[in-house]
Amino acid sequence: MSVSPLLTSLEKALRCLPGVGPRSASRMALHLLERDRERGLHLAEVLAQALEMIEHCEICSNLTEIQPCRICQDSSRDQSLLCVVSSPSDILAIEQSGLFKGHYHCLSGLLSPLEGLGPEEIGLSRLIQRVHDERPSECLVALASTVEGEATTHQIVSSLSGQTRVTRLAQGVPVGGELDHIDVSTLSQALASRTEIKF
Amino acid sequence: MSVSPLLTSLEKALRCLPGVGPRSASRMALHLLERDRERGLHLAEVLAQALEMIEHCEICSNLTEIQPCRICQDSSRDQSLLCVVSSPSDILAIEQSGLFKGHYHCLSGLLSPLEGLGPEEIGLSRLIQRVHDERPSECLVALASTVEGEATTHQIVSSLSGQTRVTRLAQGVPVGGELDHIDVSTLSQALASRTEIKF
Repeated sequence: MSVSPLLTSLEKALRCLPGVGPRSASRMALHLLERDRERGLHLAEVLAQALEMIEHCEICSNLTEIQPCRICQDSSRDQSLLCVVSSPSDILAIEQSGLFKGHYHCLSGLLSPLEGLGPEEIGLSRLIQRVHDERPSECLVALASTVEGEATTHQIVSSLSGQTRVTRLAQGVPVGGELDHIDVSTLSQALASRTEIKF
Repeated sequence: MSVSPLLTSLEKALRCLPGVGPRSASRMALHLLERDRERGLHLAEVLAQALEMIEHCEICSNLTEIQPCRICQDSSRDQSLLCVVSSPSDILAIEQSGLFKGHYHCLSGLLSPLEGLGPEEIGLSRLIQRVHDERPSECLVALASTVEGEATTHQIVSSLSGQTRVTRLAQGVPVGGELDHIDVSTLSQALASRTEIKF
């Protein structure tokens, strides 16, 4: 017999969160009930509201509660610069750097034939259509430096060739990275793309 | 400028969960919005319902959505056996063992003068009153084997002496524990309380 079926339901429901197993779920449920009811209620409200209101932007596919999203609406941003990413979290990461002032286009993932993700599934034709319509002067392909990311970058480059200048993020030693901890491919790339020190 | 204020609110709200920092919160929010909206909505509903309905049992202080709780209502359990714990999570743990068939009494924590938790704060007088009224034949004090737990056990034993038989959990080597990884106090306790092997 369960001590409290509702408590058990709450523990089960919390396991929809990534990285939360049975023990963490139990700890979270008891913490909210015993120590933090107010913030727990706030979480329930905000979660329901966010899931109801946040959709994909009809232009760039970023997550947004208004259509089009704030970035697509922002006329102070550079219309001629388009950054292609594979997930809304990448937009958040790039926005945090504060260095990119163009617009975004968010694909629905990366090409991955094994997972059944082809050009149509990740929305490549929408990107090509958008570049065709908006004619940005530069298209920055900011995808992960993985096999899937490289394959997708390659596909985008060949689809857009001749239509716009296509660029990618620099590859090299991460800031704070020590040379003896860096893998050979990264180090090779950093050597091949070495830059001149200017005084 | 925030990309989506509502997404930022959701990330902040998720940080009320224990062990969830800014990066986990962001990952959780994006996971729910991108991959698991249905279970996210279910979580919001169950969380609101649990926080509204689950209270402390008026008899044993366990968490429950009905008064008194299922354990206190269960007439098949042994009324003469009372187990004292310091948190509802301890009741869940003991119930999982399936070996205890008495009733519970849940204190509001352990004695901790530094945190301002004295006998009144943890509800010791309610326990003493209950033992006085119900006259259980045995009172099992199942508190943590820490300084605070030992101090609280000591206080309970001296308050209840003469009224009922007071017992505690056995101390010794945990199941699966290797001797060279066990601390000296535990090993001393296990040696002092060694039991005879019966064939």
